Amino acid sequence: MEKETKKNPKKKLEGLGKRMVEQLREGKGPTFESQLRTKNNIVFDEDFEILRLGERIEERSFLNAGQAKTFMQTVAVANKTKKFIEEDLHTSIRGLYYQLKFSLGEELDESLFAEQTESNALIEDLEVALHIKREDLNLTTDRKGVVAGALKIVDKFAGEETVIDGTKQGRSGWMIPSDVDNGMEFVDVKADYVLVVEKDAMWQRLNEDRFWKKENCILVTPKGQASRGTRRLLRKLADKGLPVYVFTDCDAWGWYIYWTIKTGSINLAYLGRDFAIPEARFLGVTMKDIEEFDFLKKLTLKAKEVDLKRASEMLKYPWINKHKEWVEELEKVLETKKKIEQDALQGQKLTFVGEYLKRKIEEREWLP
Amino acid sequence: MEKETKKNPKKKLEGLGKRMVEQLREGKGPTFESQLRTKNNIVFDEDFEILRLGERIEERSFLNAGQAKTFMQTVAVANKTKKFIEEDLHTSIRGLYYQLKFSLGEELDESLFAEQTESNALIEDLEVALHIKREDLNLTTDRKGVVAGALKIVDKFAGEETVIDGTKQGRSGWMIPSDVDNGMEFVDVKADYVLVVEKDAMWQRLNEDRFWKKENCILVTPKGQASRGTRRLLRKLADKGLPVYVFTDCDAWGWYIYWTIKTGSINLAYLGRDFAIPEARFLGVTMKDIEEFDFLKKLTLKAKEVDLKRASEMLKYPWINKHKEWVEELEKVLETKKKIEQDALQGQKLTFVGEYLKRKIEEREWLP
Repeated sequence: MEKETKKNPKKKLEGLGKRMVEQLREGKGPTFESQLRTKNNIVFDEDFEILRLGERIEERSFLNAGQAKTFMQTVAVANKTKKFIEEDLHTSIRGLYYQLKFSLGEELDESLFAEQTESNALIEDLEVALHIKREDLNLTTDRKGVVAGALKIVDKFAGEETVIDGTKQGRSGWMIPSDVDNGMEFVDVKADYVLVVEKDAMWQRLNEDRFWKKENCILVTPKGQASRGTRRLLRKLADKGLPVYVFTDCDAWGWYIYWTIKTGSINLAYLGRDFAIPEARFLGVTMKDIEEFDFLKKLTLKAKEVDLKRASEMLKYPWINKHKEWVEELEKVLETKKKIEQDALQGQKLTFVGEYLKRKIEEREWLP
Repeated sequence: MEKETKKNPKKKLEGLGKRMVEQLREGKGPTFESQLRTKNNIVFDEDFEILRLGERIEERSFLNAGQAKTFMQTVAVANKTKKFIEEDLHTSIRGLYYQLKFSLGEELDESLFAEQTESNALIEDLEVALHIKREDLNLTTDRKGVVAGALKIVDKFAGEETVIDGTKQGRSGWMIPSDVDNGMEFVDVKADYVLVVEKDAMWQRLNEDRFWKKENCILVTPKGQASRGTRRLLRKLADKGLPVYVFTDCDAWGWYIYWTIKTGSINLAYLGRDFAIPEARFLGVTMKDIEEFDFLKKLTLKAKEVDLKRASEMLKYPWINKHKEWVEELEKVLETKKKIEQDALQGQKLTFVGEYLKRKIEEREWLP
C-alpha cells in the first residue's frame, strides 16, 4: 500500500485535499502537517549514514492569520501540479509560478519560485509532507551534469522509446536529465564502477583518454555541485551495486561536493536517502598525494581563508570526524595551509590522471 | 596558402618561433605583433555586421623590461600548445597552467589561467596574432549548451567515429562540445531552422512537446550566455544556410545573450566573425507581445535598474539603434518600466510556447 501510493503522486495530492475537506466538514479549519525543516530538526542518521530531518512536526493552519497566505499557496501548488500530472506535461517551478500568477494574480512572491536555489519553500512543503519528489509532481529541475561510458538507458518519454548508449557519445556526453526515475531505466549495467569527476575540463580529459572504455566504468561530471538529477542518477547506479568513486579538488568546494553527494548537506537534509550515496568513496586529490607524488610538490596552491574555515568546520561534524582518515587529511590542510587542484595531476604529463585514478582504485587508496 | 596554414596551427606556431630566431640572428631582440585589444580599437564592421578588432597593432618586445615576463610566458604557451598538438591530446587552460607551472616554477600568475573568464590574456595574444582559435591549439573550453533535434553529426574523436543523432536524445540532449570544428561534421542537414532558447527549463518544455520534430528544426539552449562551442555550432549551422532564431527573456540579460550571438560583444570582439551570427533573428519575448497576447498583461514583471540601464546603453550603440524595431522595443521598456520572461508564455497553458514560436516564424514577426 505504501509502495503503491509512493508510485502514485496524484493519489497523494488528492489525499491531501480530501483530508482538508474532511476537516472542513467536521467544522475545523484545514491544517497541513510537515516535518520541521529548521536546523535543529536535522539529524545524522547513523543507520543510513545520511543527514535527514528529525521527528519534529510542524502544523500549518489556514485559520492562523500568519500562515493563511502560505497555506493557500501550498494548496494552489498542489492543485496545479495535480493538473500537470493529469495533462502528462512538465514544467519548471518558474513555469509553475506563472501558472499560479495567472490564476491568483499579483499576490505571489516571485522569489519563492526562483530557479537559482534548490530550496523552494512551497514545493519543499509538499515534498516533505507527502514523502514525494518534486520530479514526481512533473516539475523539471535545472540540469547540469554529463554522463558517458559503460551504461545503456532506455528512455520512455513523450510517447517515444529511445536507447541512450553511453559508449556512443563521441567527444561529448549525454546531459543528465532532470528526472531519471519516471520512465527511465538502466539496462545491461555491466560497468565495474562509477567515477564522478568534479570538473568538466577533467571529464573531457578522461573522455579523450577513453578512460571509461579502458576501465569499463561510467564517467560522470556534476560540473561542480551535483544537481538533483545527477544525485538521483548516482543513487540509482549505487542501488544496482556499482561502487561510486568521487574525484574532486582538495579544497573547500571539492570537499563540499563530495560530502553533499555522500550524506547530503544541512540545507538539503530534507531530501533524505533518495538523494544521498553513503557508499561513495573519495579518491582524491588528497594532501597525502602531495607526499606520494613528487611532481605535485611544486603544484600546490596556498589555501584560502574559506578552505581553512571549511576544514575546521568539517572537523567538528561527527559524521566526518569519526573517520580518522578525514581527520588526518583536514589537519594536514590546517597545518600546511596548502591545497591542490585535480588539474595539477596533468602538470607533468597530460595522461597521468588516468594512471593515478587506476592506481588509487586498484590499491583501494580512498577515503571513506 | 592562407587556407592551408589556417588548417595547420602547428605550422603557425612554428612560424612564430622561426621569426623570433631570425630576429635574434640579425642581432635584434625578438618581438611579437598582435592587434591591439583595447576598447578604442574595437570597430563595428559594417560589411559583416559584427564587432571586431580594428587595424591598430601592438608590438611586444622581449627587451622591454615591462614586457619581458609576459613575452616569455607567451612563448612558453606557444611551446606547450605545439607539444599538445604533436601529442594529439587536449587539455583546459587550467591544465596548461599546471604544465607551465611545472616547467617554469612559481613565477606564473594563476589568475591568467582562470577558467571562469573567457578572456585569458596569454591565449588571446596567440589567437589574435596567429589568426587562430584556442580550440585549434588543443585547448578545451567550458561546455554549456545542449542540442537535440533534426541534425546528425559525424564525430571523429579519440580514434573512434561516432554518429550523434539529434533525434535520438530522449528526454535530454547531447552536450555541445568544446570544439565543434576539428574532426566534427554535420551530415544530412535537412532541418528548416535552428531555434536557440535562452533557458534550459524552456528547452525541456519544448523538447517534451517534440517541437523540433513537429517543426523540423534543431533545438539549442546555450543555458544563458552562449559558450564558445555553442557559438561556433550556430555559426557552422548558419553557414549551411539555416536561419537562426533566438528566443530569450525580454530583459537586460536576454538582450545581451542575443546580441552576443549576433554581433559578438565588446569584450569578445577579438573573436571576430568565427563566433558571430549576424544572420540571427530575435523572435521574442518582446514588449509588443504584451499588447498582442492578452493573458501576458498580468504576467509582466517590474524592470530592474540593470534592465533600464542596459536598454539606455543599447539605444546608443549604432549597430542596434539603426534598427527602428529595436529602438521602439527598448523605448517601450524605458517608458513602461516593465519586462517579461519567456517562462510567462506558459502562464495560461503549458504548451502555448510552441504555438507562439510557430506563429512568430510563420508570420515573420521577428526583430533584426
